[in-house]
Amino acid sequence: MSTAARVMPHATSRAAVLDVIRAAGTISRVGLIQATGFTGATISTVVRRLIDDGLVLEIGRAESTGGKPRVLLQLNPSSRYAVGVHLDHAGITYVLTDLAGAVVARMSRAGAGAEDPPVVVSRMAGEVRNFIEGAGIDHGRVLGLGLVSPGPLTPASGMRLTPPTMRHWEEFPLDQAVSEATGMPVILENDATAAALGEHWSGVVRGTPNFAALYMGSGIGTGLMIDGMAYRGVSGNAGEIGHVCLDVAGPDCWCGARGCTEVLAGPAAVVAAARADAAISRAAGLTNAPGGPRLSVAADFAAVTRAARHGEGGARALLERSARYLAVAARTLANIMDLELLVLTGPSLGNAGSIYLPVVQEELDRAFFARGSHTVAVRLSDSAATAPAIGAATMVLQAELVPLRQGLHLHQAVAAAEEVALAAPPSAPAPSA
Amino acid sequence: MSTAARVMPHATSRAAVLDVIRAAGTISRVGLIQATGFTGATISTVVRRLIDDGLVLEIGRAESTGGKPRVLLQLNPSSRYAVGVHLDHAGITYVLTDLAGAVVARMSRAGAGAEDPPVVVSRMAGEVRNFIEGAGIDHGRVLGLGLVSPGPLTPASGMRLTPPTMRHWEEFPLDQAVSEATGMPVILENDATAAALGEHWSGVVRGTPNFAALYMGSGIGTGLMIDGMAYRGVSGNAGEIGHVCLDVAGPDCWCGARGCTEVLAGPAAVVAAARADAAISRAAGLTNAPGGPRLSVAADFAAVTRAARHGEGGARALLERSARYLAVAARTLANIMDLELLVLTGPSLGNAGSIYLPVVQEELDRAFFARGSHTVAVRLSDSAATAPAIGAATMVLQAELVPLRQGLHLHQAVAAAEEVALAAPPSAPAPSA
Repeated sequence: MSTAARVMPHATSRAAVLDVIRAAGTISRVGLIQATGFTGATISTVVRRLIDDGLVLEIGRAESTGGKPRVLLQLNPSSRYAVGVHLDHAGITYVLTDLAGAVVARMSRAGAGAEDPPVVVSRMAGEVRNFIEGAGIDHGRVLGLGLVSPGPLTPASGMRLTPPTMRHWEEFPLDQAVSEATGMPVILENDATAAALGEHWSGVVRGTPNFAALYMGSGIGTGLMIDGMAYRGVSGNAGEIGHVCLDVAGPDCWCGARGCTEVLAGPAAVVAAARADAAISRAAGLTNAPGGPRLSVAADFAAVTRAARHGEGGARALLERSARYLAVAARTLANIMDLELLVLTGPSLGNAGSIYLPVVQEELDRAFFARGSHTVAVRLSDSAATAPAIGAATMVLQAELVPLRQGLHLHQAVAAAEEVALAAPPSAPAPSA
Repeated sequence: MSTAARVMPHATSRAAVLDVIRAAGTISRVGLIQATGFTGATISTVVRRLIDDGLVLEIGRAESTGGKPRVLLQLNPSSRYAVGVHLDHAGITYVLTDLAGAVVARMSRAGAGAEDPPVVVSRMAGEVRNFIEGAGIDHGRVLGLGLVSPGPLTPASGMRLTPPTMRHWEEFPLDQAVSEATGMPVILENDATAAALGEHWSGVVRGTPNFAALYMGSGIGTGLMIDGMAYRGVSGNAGEIGHVCLDVAGPDCWCGARGCTEVLAGPAAVVAAARADAAISRAAGLTNAPGGPRLSVAADFAAVTRAARHGEGGARALLERSARYLAVAARTLANIMDLELLVLTGPSLGNAGSIYLPVVQEELDRAFFARGSHTVAVRLSDSAATAPAIGAATMVLQAELVPLRQGLHLHQAVAAAEEVALAAPPSAPAPSA
């Protein structure tokens, strides 16, 4: 299990209070009592510690509503920062967020491409250093680095069964190498789950507790949010709709199965079909010579999308065919999770989302199994390209707020809250032994 | 949302303590402190209330290990009971469980068949009354009735988009009618989720916090357990793998989509294929005359299974074909949920599970996406026919233990625990307003 799978937001009253303050902007202690349901004693203790740690500020008093004016609290955004890094074959995206999750800097650099992993990691470390310095942020206030890589994650490295474009990263101890090269704590997450966290924290569905983020970059996956927490499954690999079977007699996929969403509808499949068609290739500016120079799959996919937007009918037909497959996979996901909200995100849907959205929505309206009970709304991300890096940075912030624990369960969270509540010993009788 | 979707085990320290006592058999207060992580004051308060309510007994002292002998606690199993009823086209199964979840009586009666819903409900009420009296249980100790019906559930009735065999139950207010006819509180759940709860409470995976129950009765579905709680989705309809698409060009399904698991591999599909083959029909004793008398789908499916066991090769080939489709659907589920454990359950897998299990296991071993991280174990239920009714009864028990709340979230559960912990006011300072 990756470190990331152990992050559990809201598992303590400290994290819950901090998150309510973040969401509210400014709020009084009485407001916190009402919003959280915690007792006055708990709020008092938790807020005092947050102020002592510099995370929360008292910023004056609200206008009187008859009684004594209330002291307002807000986050101290510049008290802590986190770096989010999205490593992909096609590009590396860096973001720096403050404690409130606001993006204070962003930067894109060349992707991993065919370079050796140690070379890429060394370059990343230098880029991170320059990025933080360029933003004028004190290194001591940067809590750590959230790192996004294409799934699936494994205990050793974060990547083992890798997509074809990054096969030479198999068995490379990615998080450990980046931590050593940067001197920062590193939390690893897959792209789709990080994107869901980014959408939850700052995207079009900000604050929505239950939704799925359907992610398309070079591949296809989903990040799942349940009750405001990322659902990761037992090994951090939940949401793999790129590899659900849509056609039992379909073509072989690199994952070892056949008829997967990705082999039928993924960006690589769209680009391959575009290359096989002279008119589409010409309109999109693709190079057809076998063995000739090629851009990344994501860049080629973006070129096909531009051609479709400029009226190339064949390109549009390819994208709509891909969208119909993706829509069926989205319905599978909605039927299994009983979803009411789906966000289309990731770099490739940032480009082509307006073509995919109506097709996915129509499929869910027509054939979602529990449509007698409720609809499934589909929305297009407004930060599709940067959502994973933002999500990775927020994981670092949350890890600071909620110390990482292995196997924390609800009754332990309840116990933790009770310990806070009982910081001052109550007069209740001790248990008779 | 059905009432059932609001049940949340372990949401209070009372429920957590009771569940630890149930799981432990006997345990001391000190043992409870260690097992739950709660403070001594909390355990003392919670246990006192459970004893006052008659749910827990003090049963003498443990042998001394040097210090003062510790008082042992255990559930008072005969203090409360619950009825579980599984209503299906093919049969109605009744179970009566005590507070510990042990089945004290079970009974099967004729299914809903083609009868009108009010007639069936009236008959059920009489059968429940006789069932409780026959078991010699005081009605006053029966907390309520857990009712299982084929999904999907809707707010009005529990059933709206119904399987073909029960289409005349559409829009019938099932839980309300049963509650009025029996005079008991009713909690409604779909068959697959109830089966997962039954397996979790008393089946081969007893106590396992994360698994899916793949359920096959007349149809196909799954119940999902996450961290010891049933995951139901936004409307109680999660886990619908009977209606994920395995073949985009496949045959139309009654649900409005095409190529679904159920239309390709469900019991009705197997029985239809068996009827179309004279040799299999003869071996299985199926009646082929159009319009002639037919048993239920589940009964016909059981007959085909018996023929396969007795060496009818065509029948076995049909079941193995169904198993291969079901295995692909199981892989879809495992890829989306990142599962490590799958239980095959429900009446039809109670009959044919030994044919399905190796096929499902082989598919997951071969092509589960995160197989580089971990395997997915497949187990066969040892109570496949009664698991849903048992699960429904346990929902009633849990509802007693944890009062039903709408939209209870973690921080509210934490707050609830804090209120228990702070039952005696602490000396902590009040918040400055």
